[in-house]
Amino acid sequence: MEIFYSKDIEGNICRLDAEESGHCIKVLRHRNGDEINVIDGKGTMMKCVLTQDSPKGAVAEIIGRTPCWGGHPYRLTLAVAPTKNSDRYEWFAEKSCEIGVDRIFPVIGQHSERRVFKTARVEKILVSASKQSLKGAVPEICEPLSVKDFILKYGASPQCSGLQDGTSGNGYATLPQDGILRLIAYCFEDDSHRRTSVMEALDSYRKAFEPSPAGNGVPEIIMMIGPEGDFSVEEADLAIRHGFIPVHLGPSRLRTETAAVTAAEAAYFGFLF
Amino acid sequence: MEIFYSKDIEGNICRLDAEESGHCIKVLRHRNGDEINVIDGKGTMMKCVLTQDSPKGAVAEIIGRTPCWGGHPYRLTLAVAPTKNSDRYEWFAEKSCEIGVDRIFPVIGQHSERRVFKTARVEKILVSASKQSLKGAVPEICEPLSVKDFILKYGASPQCSGLQDGTSGNGYATLPQDGILRLIAYCFEDDSHRRTSVMEALDSYRKAFEPSPAGNGVPEIIMMIGPEGDFSVEEADLAIRHGFIPVHLGPSRLRTETAAVTAAEAAYFGFLF
Repeated sequence: MEIFYSKDIEGNICRLDAEESGHCIKVLRHRNGDEINVIDGKGTMMKCVLTQDSPKGAVAEIIGRTPCWGGHPYRLTLAVAPTKNSDRYEWFAEKSCEIGVDRIFPVIGQHSERRVFKTARVEKILVSASKQSLKGAVPEICEPLSVKDFILKYGASPQCSGLQDGTSGNGYATLPQDGILRLIAYCFEDDSHRRTSVMEALDSYRKAFEPSPAGNGVPEIIMMIGPEGDFSVEEADLAIRHGFIPVHLGPSRLRTETAAVTAAEAAYFGFLF
Repeated sequence: MEIFYSKDIEGNICRLDAEESGHCIKVLRHRNGDEINVIDGKGTMMKCVLTQDSPKGAVAEIIGRTPCWGGHPYRLTLAVAPTKNSDRYEWFAEKSCEIGVDRIFPVIGQHSERRVFKTARVEKILVSASKQSLKGAVPEICEPLSVKDFILKYGASPQCSGLQDGTSGNGYATLPQDGILRLIAYCFEDDSHRRTSVMEALDSYRKAFEPSPAGNGVPEIIMMIGPEGDFSVEEADLAIRHGFIPVHLGPSRLRTETAAVTAAEAAYFGFLF
């Protein structure tokens, strides 16, 4: 099934950019009157009929819409430290897109060797992976943030997460009012914190989940995956103070990108099976 | 933690090949009397003391052994069709090794575009992934087989699997005498078979598992993943007649290599969490 992508939609008219138009008209030789499938990147698949078969800027009329096309019944944000080798991060982006992810944040930790990150290539990869895996929504690749800034921006406010050090057994016991499950994969070499397994935390959350007025109606998970050198103790403590539950990803020693894909698989298995 | 690999072990003496010796002596500058960690690739990690620090062929004395080092409590064989792009297969090999796999078979299906496969590169990748992820056992990459030959060689004998078309709900109801769970990820465009989910099949198997005299004491899973064009109807029917239970990997449309990694993750989550 061949899918095109358009960000330029007005009413019943959708326009393909130069790249998509070239592929549609030059490569696949579509002509006016042909039916094509276009995703809007926000979750909807649109059946369209070509009205202007220009290889520079094709235009089509939308004749049908399928919302939540190829979607998943949860919202997953993965905050993952850039890998030394950028191929590995791009690979993680493609795979987590196929499996199911909504937002990716490159987060730079105190132990990160790689401290700069360009989102452009990953953005392209996410668009083609979404088309290839038949998903109407293209995951968002966000601008890099430091681990500290990410926690302060996307963590829970400290007062409502005082108990969230994982010692409560299942992490959701003290879930903040926004109803979001926040997890941080961390090793704690010093064993200072008991960690639940990611599946245990997701399972408890799924069973206890109730759509909260603050939330968007579906279970929402934010998970942090650190760099090769792991998070610093300071970063982990800050995360825990802001409602992130420390979890482990099982006994295997996983590279950063493998841990991130494993986190996406855990949500996939936790909510879809 | 730095790990070396040796296939040449006699009593308490282990020899490193030229590549490992060069890395140990030239790059890391180890000298006689230094302690080094060596895996035998069969599951054991050996504490050794260097006795001949030759960069061409280093020799060490084994002073301690840790069996089942970094192992997993199940045996997993993945029979996966070669991908058009060999990088994708190599990536799957590395990732499934980190997560946990024991044997990989490249299987050539009737719909496979790529019909030749060289195992040498994958073998190197599996050794370094095992060292990197701290596993004493290096997964085996087997010589390619056709899907048909693989099924005839590793499937159950037809008489003891007559009911294994997945319609029994949980696949293990008619588990063959060897106690091995055989799964095939297949789409059945024509919906001719009911499919259980891979997690459902693994979960039923885990709960029902009893070490069988024929088996090797741990749960054993053989899972087949087809090429981009899926298995042929003929291949799927043959597999089902030989005890392979048709399963799905969830709603996402996954590339071959992503499906294969997802299968490894399913076993990982199914048996370790």
